[in-house]
Amino acid sequence: MTYTLVLLRHGESEWNAKNLFTGWVDVALSEKGTAEAERGGTLLTDAGVLPDVVHTSLLRRAITTANLALNAADRHWIPVKRSWRLNERHYGALQGKDKKQTLAEFGEEQFMLWRRSYDTPPPAIEPGSEFSQDADPRYADAPEVLTECLKDVLERALPYFDGEIVPDLKAGKTVLVAAHGNSLRALVKHLDGISDDDIAGLNIPTGIPLLYELDEDLKPVTPGGRYLDPEAAKDAIAAVANQGR
Amino acid sequence: MTYTLVLLRHGESEWNAKNLFTGWVDVALSEKGTAEAERGGTLLTDAGVLPDVVHTSLLRRAITTANLALNAADRHWIPVKRSWRLNERHYGALQGKDKKQTLAEFGEEQFMLWRRSYDTPPPAIEPGSEFSQDADPRYADAPEVLTECLKDVLERALPYFDGEIVPDLKAGKTVLVAAHGNSLRALVKHLDGISDDDIAGLNIPTGIPLLYELDEDLKPVTPGGRYLDPEAAKDAIAAVANQGR
Repeated sequence: MTYTLVLLRHGESEWNAKNLFTGWVDVALSEKGTAEAERGGTLLTDAGVLPDVVHTSLLRRAITTANLALNAADRHWIPVKRSWRLNERHYGALQGKDKKQTLAEFGEEQFMLWRRSYDTPPPAIEPGSEFSQDADPRYADAPEVLTECLKDVLERALPYFDGEIVPDLKAGKTVLVAAHGNSLRALVKHLDGISDDDIAGLNIPTGIPLLYELDEDLKPVTPGGRYLDPEAAKDAIAAVANQGR
Repeated sequence: MTYTLVLLRHGESEWNAKNLFTGWVDVALSEKGTAEAERGGTLLTDAGVLPDVVHTSLLRRAITTANLALNAADRHWIPVKRSWRLNERHYGALQGKDKKQTLAEFGEEQFMLWRRSYDTPPPAIEPGSEFSQDADPRYADAPEVLTECLKDVLERALPYFDGEIVPDLKAGKTVLVAAHGNSLRALVKHLDGISDDDIAGLNIPTGIPLLYELDEDLKPVTPGGRYLDPEAAKDAIAAVANQGR
């Protein structure tokens, strides 16, 4: 008896395309991202992986990716659950800033610390500022979040994984999680038991379903899971690593 | 204290455009239908009507309409509930047939009886035939449905309305129901207390949100509710009535 979990990072967003820090800013998919999402659904169909339930963040790039992928896989009708706990990492005061410009302004070391350190968050965003979410009704029931490091993401994603996703898995459902680079890295860190240091080197490509078969203790049968298009995943992982260069 | 219920009939589907009986056949929106769905979302925004939860059928023309309208209204992140009980009327053996041809073949009286009588269903569809849904996994937990009259639709929609939609209304939520010509006619018949005879004359246009304010007894404050674009609704209602001519 194994459990089937599929992780899907949203397709390219308008701000991925512009190389801006996005975080909780609710940007749309780019045209390329739309195509990636639909292809993600085709990959599910081709692999015979049929989600029974989908969990998404509260951000439209993940929600639209789930909608398009499931429609392409003829599973648009399955139950949907959403939570801010699956949101992208809040990028604090960096939200809306150009990645290249930020690298030039603050230097390689500080830039990489903000992007990839496990426990150093960027400076907090100023409430009420242009790219802040403090007045957004969708977060009315969430605690105030002004910036996050990956550790923060893991700490707020894990209760959702344990409380909402695991019960679906244990009910024998194939679970699709449509989310973000960092919320999915947090889940992968947890599933694969990756160390705080090693997680820095892990990138998840957009739009390619990552399939985990989990054993009874929710440990991956194959560490790292299996991308449904391994070649494309390899190429995309290399490209993500070079962002901001 | 009033409750706010918004009914939204999906935009034009590929089979509406071809003038075929659709029922439970899971066709996509046409390009026009996609635009209608997005405009439906803009009408919600313009009216300041912000859904807190959405209920849809299990058919992609309603699901996609909800997705597109909510995205346009910046409410894509609200909770979603789905049920086969909100599906279009099952059109039995007529599913997949041309409306004009059916009118010519069976004559005006029989045609109108199938389309608009309250309690005469079309002939049952043959299980296993091209446009049957008996092998569709999404209906695994539903009873077998082989044809329906409007009365059947009301009888299967009402338990969902009472059991799932009313509790959301009573919790003070603005509820959006994205569904179909006949499942929405059934709900309107129930809400407005329309007689079995008079419901025949009621058509609901596609893509135009129909807003009901309901009193404490769930009776409409304004009988018939209010379309968020009354002029367009009037024109569209006339057009629907002429289908098949």
